[in-house]
Amino acid sequence: MELYIGIAAAIFGTVCWIPQAWKAWSSRDTSGLSLPSNLMFLLTVSLWLIYGLMVGDLPLILANVCAVTAVLVIVTAKLKFG
Amino acid sequence: MELYIGIAAAIFGTVCWIPQAWKAWSSRDTSGLSLPSNLMFLLTVSLWLIYGLMVGDLPLILANVCAVTAVLVIVTAKLKFG
Repeated sequence: MELYIGIAAAIFGTVCWIPQAWKAWSSRDTSGLSLPSNLMFLLTVSLWLIYGLMVGDLPLILANVCAVTAVLVIVTAKLKFG
Repeated sequence: MELYIGIAAAIFGTVCWIPQAWKAWSSRDTSGLSLPSNLMFLLTVSLWLIYGLMVGDLPLILANVCAVTAVLVIVTAKLKFG
């Protein structure tokens, strides 16, 4: 049971920033996004990716490659559109 | 070394949404926030909290109590201010 809850959390955590990345890039409406929060979150998912690579954990690597990509799009949109 | 990277990732992941929660609530500028992303992220951190409670992992519980609180503020601000 814990395993399924952990898997569900990992899947939602992987895909959840895709709508925000899409919205920020397509609407250019980024004034309400916090740059410190998104930079810290980019650092967070980058550190998890490095950790996953160091311990050789494939689910952690795949989830965080996806998250790093989405959050990079959000941070780039914020820096570009203000 | 992996341990320190994991700990750093956990700490940044815990505090990173506090500036966004503060910004959303104080500025009421929430039009650029994606409701689907923030609802999915609320589900994600809630599931991690439940998982932490089930397996009795104190760092996971503390980190996700903090994250659930910050993301609840963001979702409430988004629903209230549009």
